[in-house]
Amino acid sequence: MGNKTYHNEEALKAVVHSLASSHGTLDLCHLSRGNEPLPNQATIKEIVRLSREVIFPGFQGDTAVNSYNLEYTIGLKLERLQALLENQIVAGFAVDCRELDFDTLHSRVHEITDHFIALLPELRRVLHTDVEALYLGDPATTSPQEVVYCYPAVKAITNYRIAHALLQQGVPIIPRMISELAHSETGIDIHPGATIGESFAIDHGTGVVIGATAIIGNNVKLYQGVTLGALSFSRDTDGNPVKGVARHPIIGNNVIVYSNASILGRITIGDGAVIGGNIWVTTDVAPGERVVQSRFER
Amino acid sequence: MGNKTYHNEEALKAVVHSLASSHGTLDLCHLSRGNEPLPNQATIKEIVRLSREVIFPGFQGDTAVNSYNLEYTIGLKLERLQALLENQIVAGFAVDCRELDFDTLHSRVHEITDHFIALLPELRRVLHTDVEALYLGDPATTSPQEVVYCYPAVKAITNYRIAHALLQQGVPIIPRMISELAHSETGIDIHPGATIGESFAIDHGTGVVIGATAIIGNNVKLYQGVTLGALSFSRDTDGNPVKGVARHPIIGNNVIVYSNASILGRITIGDGAVIGGNIWVTTDVAPGERVVQSRFER
Amino acid sequence: MGNKTYHNEEALKAVVHSLASSHGTLDLCHLSRGNEPLPNQATIKEIVRLSREVIFPGFQGDTAVNSYNLEYTIGLKLERLQALLENQIVAGFAVDCRELDFDTLHSRVHEITDHFIALLPELRRVLHTDVEALYLGDPATTSPQEVVYCYPAVKAITNYRIAHALLQQGVPIIPRMISELAHSETGIDIHPGATIGESFAIDHGTGVVIGATAIIGNNVKLYQGVTLGALSFSRDTDGNPVKGVARHPIIGNNVIVYSNASILGRITIGDGAVIGGNIWVTTDVAPGERVVQSRFER
Amino acid sequence: MGNKTYHNEEALKAVVHSLASSHGTLDLCHLSRGNEPLPNQATIKEIVRLSREVIFPGFQGDTAVNSYNLEYTIGLKLERLQALLENQIVAGFAVDCRELDFDTLHSRVHEITDHFIALLPELRRVLHTDVEALYLGDPATTSPQEVVYCYPAVKAITNYRIAHALLQQGVPIIPRMISELAHSETGIDIHPGATIGESFAIDHGTGVVIGATAIIGNNVKLYQGVTLGALSFSRDTDGNPVKGVARHPIIGNNVIVYSNASILGRITIGDGAVIGGNIWVTTDVAPGERVVQSRFER
Amino acid sequence: MGNKTYHNEEALKAVVHSLASSHGTLDLCHLSRGNEPLPNQATIKEIVRLSREVIFPGFQGDTAVNSYNLEYTIGLKLERLQALLENQIVAGFAVDCRELDFDTLHSRVHEITDHFIALLPELRRVLHTDVEALYLGDPATTSPQEVVYCYPAVKAITNYRIAHALLQQGVPIIPRMISELAHSETGIDIHPGATIGESFAIDHGTGVVIGATAIIGNNVKLYQGVTLGALSFSRDTDGNPVKGVARHPIIGNNVIVYSNASILGRITIGDGAVIGGNIWVTTDVAPGERVVQSRFER
Amino acid sequence: MGNKTYHNEEALKAVVHSLASSHGTLDLCHLSRGNEPLPNQATIKEIVRLSREVIFPGFQGDTAVNSYNLEYTIGLKLERLQALLENQIVAGFAVDCRELDFDTLHSRVHEITDHFIALLPELRRVLHTDVEALYLGDPATTSPQEVVYCYPAVKAITNYRIAHALLQQGVPIIPRMISELAHSETGIDIHPGATIGESFAIDHGTGVVIGATAIIGNNVKLYQGVTLGALSFSRDTDGNPVKGVARHPIIGNNVIVYSNASILGRITIGDGAVIGGNIWVTTDVAPGERVVQSRFER
Repeated sequence: MGNKTYHNEEALKAVVHSLASSHGTLDLCHLSRGNEPLPNQATIKEIVRLSREVIFPGFQGDTAVNSYNLEYTIGLKLERLQALLENQIVAGFAVDCRELDFDTLHSRVHEITDHFIALLPELRRVLHTDVEALYLGDPATTSPQEVVYCYPAVKAITNYRIAHALLQQGVPIIPRMISELAHSETGIDIHPGATIGESFAIDHGTGVVIGATAIIGNNVKLYQGVTLGALSFSRDTDGNPVKGVARHPIIGNNVIVYSNASILGRITIGDGAVIGGNIWVTTDVAPGERVVQSRFER
Repeated sequence: MGNKTYHNEEALKAVVHSLASSHGTLDLCHLSRGNEPLPNQATIKEIVRLSREVIFPGFQGDTAVNSYNLEYTIGLKLERLQALLENQIVAGFAVDCRELDFDTLHSRVHEITDHFIALLPELRRVLHTDVEALYLGDPATTSPQEVVYCYPAVKAITNYRIAHALLQQGVPIIPRMISELAHSETGIDIHPGATIGESFAIDHGTGVVIGATAIIGNNVKLYQGVTLGALSFSRDTDGNPVKGVARHPIIGNNVIVYSNASILGRITIGDGAVIGGNIWVTTDVAPGERVVQSRFER
Repeated sequence: MGNKTYHNEEALKAVVHSLASSHGTLDLCHLSRGNEPLPNQATIKEIVRLSREVIFPGFQGDTAVNSYNLEYTIGLKLERLQALLENQIVAGFAVDCRELDFDTLHSRVHEITDHFIALLPELRRVLHTDVEALYLGDPATTSPQEVVYCYPAVKAITNYRIAHALLQQGVPIIPRMISELAHSETGIDIHPGATIGESFAIDHGTGVVIGATAIIGNNVKLYQGVTLGALSFSRDTDGNPVKGVARHPIIGNNVIVYSNASILGRITIGDGAVIGGNIWVTTDVAPGERVVQSRFER
Repeated sequence: MGNKTYHNEEALKAVVHSLASSHGTLDLCHLSRGNEPLPNQATIKEIVRLSREVIFPGFQGDTAVNSYNLEYTIGLKLERLQALLENQIVAGFAVDCRELDFDTLHSRVHEITDHFIALLPELRRVLHTDVEALYLGDPATTSPQEVVYCYPAVKAITNYRIAHALLQQGVPIIPRMISELAHSETGIDIHPGATIGESFAIDHGTGVVIGATAIIGNNVKLYQGVTLGALSFSRDTDGNPVKGVARHPIIGNNVIVYSNASILGRITIGDGAVIGGNIWVTTDVAPGERVVQSRFER
Repeated sequence: MGNKTYHNEEALKAVVHSLASSHGTLDLCHLSRGNEPLPNQATIKEIVRLSREVIFPGFQGDTAVNSYNLEYTIGLKLERLQALLENQIVAGFAVDCRELDFDTLHSRVHEITDHFIALLPELRRVLHTDVEALYLGDPATTSPQEVVYCYPAVKAITNYRIAHALLQQGVPIIPRMISELAHSETGIDIHPGATIGESFAIDHGTGVVIGATAIIGNNVKLYQGVTLGALSFSRDTDGNPVKGVARHPIIGNNVIVYSNASILGRITIGDGAVIGGNIWVTTDVAPGERVVQSRFER
Repeated sequence: MGNKTYHNEEALKAVVHSLASSHGTLDLCHLSRGNEPLPNQATIKEIVRLSREVIFPGFQGDTAVNSYNLEYTIGLKLERLQALLENQIVAGFAVDCRELDFDTLHSRVHEITDHFIALLPELRRVLHTDVEALYLGDPATTSPQEVVYCYPAVKAITNYRIAHALLQQGVPIIPRMISELAHSETGIDIHPGATIGESFAIDHGTGVVIGATAIIGNNVKLYQGVTLGALSFSRDTDGNPVKGVARHPIIGNNVIVYSNASILGRITIGDGAVIGGNIWVTTDVAPGERVVQSRFER
């Protein structure tokens, strides 16, 4: 505070000028055009928090929800959620840089937001199956309530299901920011493009990566450090990666994958298979099969 | 701001009503009964911050501690720590959903809090051994002060030792929230139920998982990605996991476990053993033994 | 609020006195001497945020940058960055505990800060190569803008390049706090002492560890969970680790390292090599060579 | 920031000790006993703000009230108003220093609060007559809305009517804090003990004083600087003022009092009288009479 | 905190419903229509603060203005001032309740704001004459700087000149909110409709009232408690006050009015007249004349 | 938010340039030189709040003071008070614009601050006599506690006594800012230069003005609107007011002055005199004399 030095005033101004003037071919200076909002991590955070609050009322702790105020509370949170979501969806489209017809855009954004809000009760139903799977699958927990309060997977999967719903409506950037938020909080990195069934459980979770084209059945459980990744990807004749190719695994129902296993490429892990820890799987695994690491050396 | 739309007012109100009305069999709407506080992540965060501040005064940086104000500062922080802790311990018991006799509860909570406060000097002594172990074990560090300022293990182990002390007094939920906080901050997930000796070091730490029934000796060092986990667990006749069974490893004194090793099940790693990285260990390792991954293929 | 208990007033005061009085041989009570600032994680966070804001204007979202205000905004942010940086560099030297000649110190700190500010345009240029590498290397991304908004590697590498620049000027403690901040945010732990070339990419990144003496060429890509670590380190005759010995790998240009691979010791991975996932590499790998995990057992 | 001086450490500690130790015969060190809250100006401010918000929704500007959220918003504000009011009423009784039977106190406080909440619609009705009187009486205003947004009298009279309602229920201290808040905001000092009819208007208002036993009819208008005060008061044999004696004027209906007039003592100003500015009135004024200052000297 | 009572849940809900449902003939429930902002005292406060900061840079103390950052600082403050002003001018028109053509409104608001911003250098020039008059007229002050830091008249006159400029452009409500803000801060109530010359001084100021149609020459000085008010006003055949009639005094150049004098009605106080304190003046005073209160009684 | 218009970008920049470039002969652009702090109203506010908190512990309500924490609380508040006071005293001297010898300045500031801190117990003693006088003099109050919580005079007189103590030590600007703060809060304007005895009471207080050279005895009581002012002042040959001339009244012991009386010039009001309301007194009043307004006209 009050640390105002003058000895280098001209040098400082020169750096200011340099940083303000040219931003290179990548154009990594994001200037707002007119009234457009910009994607904003703090707003995304609040969107996520509000979604969690209306889905799991009383579990965020900062609002004392009770029988008197439950409907009032959800009513106001939902209104704010809608407003912030509209703001950030517009921001997402703005980054996308396509020429936007303002009126078309706003009616499209209204549609997307309405769709999302209407989907919330169903999202809640599916998330309850995830919580139940986490509760039933861990001898260390004492109640479903403890799961909601303490399990990072609940945060990561909630963010995934929100982000996935938005991505399905064609929202750019924002779904990835939502999933990256969970990644930062929990170490679990689920691409919003992945398709994931009900009763999905991740234990501990740090280091889990689920790629954009992965498909996961019902009642699957992953441990920490599991990768469902790509083995390689095609490049076009300019050397750029070809977008949109299915390149991540398909995991069947009732599969368990133990810690630090890497499952790579568009392979299929059959229903009920068990993948042992610390291995690198790049070929199909049959239903019910169990694969483990080769023995270490003593 | 000011984004108040009306076109979907009735639809919004219907979603509000749906979200407010039914919460399914898992009862994941946590309504407060009367005056009970709810578990609150922000309060837990402050409890952790206050504990760190009285254990390592001057290292959190937001308070300028000096010889004049040291006792005054600790005096006020301790009072606030006590108040917040009582609040959250009550909240933990309230989630637990047992019929609570209000007077019994409060005298029990007073006892637990008093016990915890009285334990702080001893917790500090043990944490100093951990800091010393981190300092002595890493050629990249220049002073014990740097360890306290920069090493995530100090945060994770401090939270663990706090959470463990509370769990030993029977506090529900809150210890897990404390350890999960450290997990989110550091990627290190130590269950408060684990038993861990003095001079405990974790380097880097991201992805480390230590299970609820693990037992760790003195002077043990873990690297990033190490799992001390369960191999499987028993289910009762209803298919629910059996709680409370010892299912995580016992690690002797002076053991080193390298990065991404998974040690699973109620096995014993003998004193002085060295476990190499990226391996999956599910059987006992003898004292002094050294195990490494089988050679890779070129 | 209002939770003031009296039953244990004397016991509380005794704990206060105990915590305030003795801090053991490690001296882990950091009292400020006179006017010295202390290292402060919140200030470090703001330094990092300001650096990101002037390097990637408009991407942090909390300031609406536009063509009218771009120069004004950068002008004020740069001034604040300079002031906070000076404050924390002084704090870093103060922890270092050497007898400080106040005037020498301040002129040294001015020099370091001026040097850092002047370096910002070049830091920006190099970071643009990193963003481009991330963009070109991932089929899941749609624009360089998305990379800046959503990729944790951008945060981690930005912090690394800032911290490295400060460490090269001899700043103690603060560079490590900057890199630890990124570690906590992203799970990517890059020691500021490492030497890293241009066009550096890390995908997902959770669990990545890059040691203090590692050397990395241009156009290298790492996946999550990769360790570039030490295999062991020398101790002096007192049993303390010998500081400053080169003990981490040298990675050539155009190398790819897949998820959870551990590369340990002062070995060399040749240009263009590919290291498969989940393996433990402790010997040199030739240029162009491709190594993968031995097959698992079914 | 960082201004930590040591030269006077012992002197500082001596002053601390002196200020902490003795508080004289007036006992002006207000220590909290156990769990009692203390009167808190910030909480009083919020109570006033919440009351204004539910009485004049949409006029405080910080909440965008609309047809969707009106009931939700009032629902939550009313709940918070009730909680804060209970807290401060308890605090008021605690200052009063009488031996409190905790259970009796709390049931009494519940009753008072319930009574107050139930009174709000009627308070609103009367306040609407005041707003109407202000609107009709001032050619400078353009709408009743402008009156609510801009007239200090609305704030002062609202606070008075709230404070009066609480004082009638026997609440100590708090009503005076509420009226003093309006005094500080507006320069209008209305004692909560005064009795004031409907359609009450104060123009400009700075310097207006209305004493504790004043009685004011309907449709009265006061200008700035008007005092309705006591001329003198009795002292008991100990020289202390005798409490509770009627000592302020009775003002009839439809009276106008111009700026800076002082009306003092238990006199009666008859219906429809007009009191000119800058005069000192200590005797009755007949109904319909008009009194003005004697001519000045040129 | 946590004071959630249930005994009166139904009664509370009934009050909520009553307060939400009917707002009487005055319509004192101000619901926002669509995207319109509402007048907001906090925003008005910021508008005033920003105006003061660009007119008297460095005197608000919360920003350390220096030769390096002066232009950057003013640049950003001006942008924010413009944005907030547009927002509140729209809000003012919205309260006015006339059917608004959205496009016309916005282009009108842009014009008004542009006009106001362009006027700032001239407003500054005139305010400097006021500061000089205050400095020269008070033996108790030591520098013009002290006047800006400490004299409430500077705040009140600045707000008046801002509000007057906006009112001249036809802005509803907002100018009165700006002047009322100064009234609350300083006890000086200047209607934005008044016309006031240069070098205007008010000493102490509490209780000063200047009516909407008052006209004041150059180099006039008022003391505390002075009223320039209306003596009476006409009502139309419905009994409503007739708006827009000149009803406040005309004060010539170089006039001094001492404390608590009331000058009432459309009278003229000639150039250079001196009005003594505590008198009630309702007839013209000749240029150069000096009038004082008749002698008191002993 | 997001209200970024471009149509007038060049015009805006021209206004920025104009406001940044020339500040006229009064030099009302206060640029900081190097490290000097600037006078800051928010800091002054905190200084006042801290002083009140250590003088009347527990009455500000935002800190729950109790027997456990009283000494700790006062200890920390005193340290902060000292630091802020030093900061603002330096700022005051810096405005004063004299060439400052940095070392002399700082040792002078230390002396002043030490003196002030050491004076606090005596200030408290005198303020207790004021509280007692207010309590004994008002039949509407029920306890000395109510006086401290609710009487604006306590705030105004506390600020006066603090400001007076600083002015006696030669501190520029800051004492006036402290008294102006009370003026804004309470409408009571006491110049810090005035000399005021013990047991001083002001009832209601709005509009009270006490000039810089006024002298007031013990046990004096003033009502609202009372002015102790100057009748006129001398100008030097340049037309500037002559500073430092005694020009305000001397009030004896045990005097009562009723509302809105103006006592002007260096006259003497004898011990025990009573001055009636709304009068203008410019000549001496004998001890014990009682003066009242001449009768009004009916």
